[in-house]
Amino acid sequence: MSDACYVHGYSQREKERLADQADTLSRLLHHDTAYPAGSRVLECGCGTGAQTVHLAAGSPQATIVSVDLSRSSVEAAQTRIRTAGYTNVEFQVGDIFNLPFEEQSFDHLFVCFVLEHLTEAVEALRRLRRLLRAGGSITAIEGDHGSWYCHPQTPQASRTVECLIDIQARMGGDSLIGRRLYPLLVEAGFESVRVSPRMVYVDASRPELVEGFSKKTFIAMVEGVRDQALSLGLIDPVTWEKGIADMYRATEPGGTFCYTFFKAHALK
Amino acid sequence: MSDACYVHGYSQREKERLADQADTLSRLLHHDTAYPAGSRVLECGCGTGAQTVHLAAGSPQATIVSVDLSRSSVEAAQTRIRTAGYTNVEFQVGDIFNLPFEEQSFDHLFVCFVLEHLTEAVEALRRLRRLLRAGGSITAIEGDHGSWYCHPQTPQASRTVECLIDIQARMGGDSLIGRRLYPLLVEAGFESVRVSPRMVYVDASRPELVEGFSKKTFIAMVEGVRDQALSLGLIDPVTWEKGIADMYRATEPGGTFCYTFFKAHALK
Repeated sequence: MSDACYVHGYSQREKERLADQADTLSRLLHHDTAYPAGSRVLECGCGTGAQTVHLAAGSPQATIVSVDLSRSSVEAAQTRIRTAGYTNVEFQVGDIFNLPFEEQSFDHLFVCFVLEHLTEAVEALRRLRRLLRAGGSITAIEGDHGSWYCHPQTPQASRTVECLIDIQARMGGDSLIGRRLYPLLVEAGFESVRVSPRMVYVDASRPELVEGFSKKTFIAMVEGVRDQALSLGLIDPVTWEKGIADMYRATEPGGTFCYTFFKAHALK
Repeated sequence: MSDACYVHGYSQREKERLADQADTLSRLLHHDTAYPAGSRVLECGCGTGAQTVHLAAGSPQATIVSVDLSRSSVEAAQTRIRTAGYTNVEFQVGDIFNLPFEEQSFDHLFVCFVLEHLTEAVEALRRLRRLLRAGGSITAIEGDHGSWYCHPQTPQASRTVECLIDIQARMGGDSLIGRRLYPLLVEAGFESVRVSPRMVYVDASRPELVEGFSKKTFIAMVEGVRDQALSLGLIDPVTWEKGIADMYRATEPGGTFCYTFFKAHALK
């Protein structure tokens, strides 16, 4: 996966979206991840470090090695981690399919919002598994765009979300991967696989999620593929605008919004 | 809603399905419902008592008054409760829109898998609210068939589930009501409304849910509307059989199955 074909792109708004998402969802996704003092953790596909800050905060005495294919993302992540004051993270540019580490050189693997972008997710997991010591763990977190629904829901709103799913699929990814984490990890040879869904439910009584998740994370992500969806002819502009407007309507009082992330834990 | 137009029917298999469902899901749905000693609880739409047993067990010193429109269901519920040895439940046949109780005569209301079958769910909630004392609570639990998805998923499997949704809608119900509990309760005048989703996630590491939920609860429920779906022309027999077979495939190793119930708590 090169810079050019990352579905979410590398814009400033995308950086802000990732930061909003990470802050709002960090407790839901990361509260039960903490690595012991002295352990060596490989974070694969760290991007701009949106999850890395939570990883560093949750395991202050572990050494985290964070890798990404994109040099500019690694540099942004380095800046973010330095600004936040963490000193337990090392960064490296590298390809998940060909990482420059010795076999069994990590105690734990952490892979968040990465597998969804890979055509060969099982092969990536197999290669990562080689880097893990016997008895070490992998934690994998992914969303599943097919888990999204809202009230009131309209066919146009569903269609706009399907555009994002279609575009990610055309780029070789799978945005419905959350539901597949269990079979993927089993197929890659991991053991004791345990998946726990982390559902985000939003209504007017949860204003921080209305802003931080529904608007600034999910709808912003869908809006991010507008130009691609239109230029590929997946949807017409009128349907698109109606779909986006309908999604915003579901963020108003009386509306609800649902989405599920999946977190998997497994052992070598 | 008369006996004849209850979407799930009144067959022996349906009774067993409801019992399997209640046992498998009881902890997920009911673990946090317990009423204090001496309180008076109205369970509205008790059916054959599948939830009543858990209500009686969870609040042994409360008095539970369980009501249903169907005399045969009330009799089945009475037998079930007597067999289980509970003595804190009174039964009555009655219509949710016209119950023979005084205003403010209950401390708590409990409504589980009932609102989905009503055309006028808000009106039913308004009338129930009158029976509640000031400061009393309502607990409402509903599923949402639009929250279902599986892996591997096929268009035929989705179509079979849509048949169930369509048929329930034609009968005046709404099987997508889970996501609407918050606005419904607010509109009916309840306060401090809080909804918590209860997601059922099933993979091969959870064999009790493969049997108790995926097969015996959800797929059995879909299979229950086969004849109606075919006679209404909502689907052709080949697509139906393929859809059901595909759903069973998602219960085999490598498959996953997801569904979400919604539990709401609110005050008068």
